[in-house]
Amino acid sequence: MTTQDIAESFTKLCKAGKFDEAGAKFWSDDVISIEPMTGDMARLKGRKAVEGKGKWFSENHEVHSCKVDGPFVNGDEFILGFEMDMTPKGKQRMTMKETGLYRVKDGKVVEEKFYFNG
Amino acid sequence: MTTQDIAESFTKLCKAGKFDEAGAKFWSDDVISIEPMTGDMARLKGRKAVEGKGKWFSENHEVHSCKVDGPFVNGDEFILGFEMDMTPKGKQRMTMKETGLYRVKDGKVVEEKFYFNG
Repeated sequence: MTTQDIAESFTKLCKAGKFDEAGAKFWSDDVISIEPMTGDMARLKGRKAVEGKGKWFSENHEVHSCKVDGPFVNGDEFILGFEMDMTPKGKQRMTMKETGLYRVKDGKVVEEKFYFNG
Repeated sequence: MTTQDIAESFTKLCKAGKFDEAGAKFWSDDVISIEPMTGDMARLKGRKAVEGKGKWFSENHEVHSCKVDGPFVNGDEFILGFEMDMTPKGKQRMTMKETGLYRVKDGKVVEEKFYFNG
């Protein structure tokens, strides 16, 4: 599979709301996940840690809908845009916009890096 | 200026259609510009070469409008989304969607890398 193929397959799952399945299928065992923040979750390494972040997110946010834009591809990287209508636990409903940059190696996503708007 | 400040200032100029002014103000002299293609313009280095690409683009495309989304920031990088309504010279009017990843160092954009959709 080319990066374009992987990007399209990954994106198709995200557009269907199957973010966990996209990760399960395409994350490398050593995947690195980088968030634009400080603290424990700023940089995670390994499938188990990144799955843990996904679990934490699901447990602490109610996602009403998520628009996914892309994929935008160059070489071994692709970018997705996300616009998420969600309610963080105990807070007000909000729209979160972010982009994700994915780096592909040997048919797997080896790094994902997120960028926030605002 | 922080990367967030530079990203916002750069984006404001782009949203006003002032792409050349954004480059003139923020490109470093050694800026690297990477396009998702092969050939002469795939990787350009230096302000003069990158300005030359901008000039070539302007001369060969009529841009009717351009929506700019962002900036999306993480560390010393930011991402912009572009949706351009344009007519390439001698071709049909089309919508081009791309994203740009910008890397900032010492208050200047030292690298821009574009990703295409489709």
